[in-house]
Amino acid sequence: MYEVIKGDAERHLKLLKGKVAFVFTIGNTKTAEIGGITVAGENPELIKYTPPADVELLYYGECKSIATIPATPDGKPTPALITYTALNLVDAPFFVVDSGLMIKPKIPYISIDAPIGDNIVEARAMDYDRVLDALNNAKTFGMQMSKHADIVMIGESIPAGTTTAAAVLKALGLNAAVSSSMPENPVELKMRVVDETLRRMNKTDDPLEIVAEVGDPVMVGVIGLALGVANSKKPVVLAGGTQMVAIANVLSKLGEVDAIIATTSYVANDKNADMNLSPYPVVSVDLGLDKSEKDGLRAYAQGFVKEGVGAGGAALLAYVNGVSKKEFVKAVEENYYKIVESKMI
Amino acid sequence: MYEVIKGDAERHLKLLKGKVAFVFTIGNTKTAEIGGITVAGENPELIKYTPPADVELLYYGECKSIATIPATPDGKPTPALITYTALNLVDAPFFVVDSGLMIKPKIPYISIDAPIGDNIVEARAMDYDRVLDALNNAKTFGMQMSKHADIVMIGESIPAGTTTAAAVLKALGLNAAVSSSMPENPVELKMRVVDETLRRMNKTDDPLEIVAEVGDPVMVGVIGLALGVANSKKPVVLAGGTQMVAIANVLSKLGEVDAIIATTSYVANDKNADMNLSPYPVVSVDLGLDKSEKDGLRAYAQGFVKEGVGAGGAALLAYVNGVSKKEFVKAVEENYYKIVESKMI
Repeated sequence: MYEVIKGDAERHLKLLKGKVAFVFTIGNTKTAEIGGITVAGENPELIKYTPPADVELLYYGECKSIATIPATPDGKPTPALITYTALNLVDAPFFVVDSGLMIKPKIPYISIDAPIGDNIVEARAMDYDRVLDALNNAKTFGMQMSKHADIVMIGESIPAGTTTAAAVLKALGLNAAVSSSMPENPVELKMRVVDETLRRMNKTDDPLEIVAEVGDPVMVGVIGLALGVANSKKPVVLAGGTQMVAIANVLSKLGEVDAIIATTSYVANDKNADMNLSPYPVVSVDLGLDKSEKDGLRAYAQGFVKEGVGAGGAALLAYVNGVSKKEFVKAVEENYYKIVESKMI
Repeated sequence: MYEVIKGDAERHLKLLKGKVAFVFTIGNTKTAEIGGITVAGENPELIKYTPPADVELLYYGECKSIATIPATPDGKPTPALITYTALNLVDAPFFVVDSGLMIKPKIPYISIDAPIGDNIVEARAMDYDRVLDALNNAKTFGMQMSKHADIVMIGESIPAGTTTAAAVLKALGLNAAVSSSMPENPVELKMRVVDETLRRMNKTDDPLEIVAEVGDPVMVGVIGLALGVANSKKPVVLAGGTQMVAIANVLSKLGEVDAIIATTSYVANDKNADMNLSPYPVVSVDLGLDKSEKDGLRAYAQGFVKEGVGAGGAALLAYVNGVSKKEFVKAVEENYYKIVESKMI
């Protein structure tokens, strides 16, 4: 069901049986407007609706900003469907942070006054002062929301987030491959984007300056939240794949954070996603979707979508609290029927 | 220090020793633009900055949107100073909900997409659909933020809120007097405003329609939050004076909420503030400021300001958790010196 593939995560796993709070950090980078770089949306116009629609699904079991749930152009559903299922099985409280959204979600959300990220190939991603302000706001909220929790999980949703993550890792001197929500990962396109971006920027050792230059606003939100949770002396689970690896490498340079990363086995087993670059322990979580009756879900095990919206961490939370893999797949399938299939003609 | 002046509040008082979460619901109504109706701000232009500046003070011990802290035209400080002191003594987590703000605060805040309230003499306060949406958003957030808490306290900040409260009470058929942040309460002006407002509106028994017609957006936020907390089977403390009495009368018609009201003795002893109209138990909290060395604080006991930003409830929280009245006054005085006096020339 899950496996610690790096370091020691036992203490964190035990705390997941206690009071867990989840926070989803969502935003946009114009990097997603580069043709072919992301499939997080049925078409280019819909991509910017994916983060708000993801969190609407989490709260209400349906999206309000778009008619259907976010999907790839060929119909693979958003991983928010998996997160939604897990959250319903465990009943943990969760919050949504607007970390640079183009479209505001129709739910209550926390504003940290984060900027929308610019296209990193063309321009600096964010103004440094705006990054600092958003970081401090996220830190303040992270401190407050973790006071009554034993441990906090942080997930994300930002189209093209794996590309900005690869740019940050490379700017940090870590030569990472790039993961993706596509099985035929457009590695060449992404690598070209990253290389061009790195040529554009001035070299620096300041990790926050790297984020401001070639990162995205969701990184800022996650980093601020994690620092705030650490301020309340609580541990953190960064729920995600290579994006959380990039964030973890920045975070570990900024302060002492008691963190682990939890991601799906589909990312952990992907040769293009080097989870070993994480400075924190890593847990790989098997969603069990290879055994699903539903094509749209089996696709996850075949390398489509793979992770996002904290799906791996949310499933881990369900497993640790007694849900079996079989029960979990069944619950995901039921929601897939209710939310996706039953709405088709 | 505190006294239950109506009903039975023992169970709630006991829970205040446990895990308490505080939420401040802040917003604006254009009713505050009626000349002379409020002193919640040094001058008419500054009034709209009072709610954001109040909550900036709570988080940072200083305001960011304005140079000094909110005060009356003759320099009496905002009750947020008292709340700030109490929150520092108990270390309870707290959140801020934007419930119809003209100016956004420079802190992390929760957006519920509430409208700014119109001037109730001239027009309907809010669109009914916007009220419903904001109410549902507040409810969702209230449910989430209360899951790990034993009890939730809700405070408010909205200039001219006592006037909209009087209008709602009257529209509900409760003939209340009007409290105020002024010792020579401009009762005549307020009553004229309320009477004119009531003549303007169509009579209705729908409590939410009354709020939409003659209330303000902060009422919507508080009501939604309280319903959400009740959904998580947790009790609520409405921290405030006549505004909470108006809210309580609407709330008790909308659902089963396990609530009490906590307010300062300065409001409870005010003949113009009939706390007895509360459908829930009421606790009167003595801030002890009649004994203060500082004129600006002693003014509270002389009928200036009296309550706001959950000051009474926050002091109650400190008292229940072992802070003596003498210690509390001393801590308020220290903050008054640090935040107000030391910044004067």
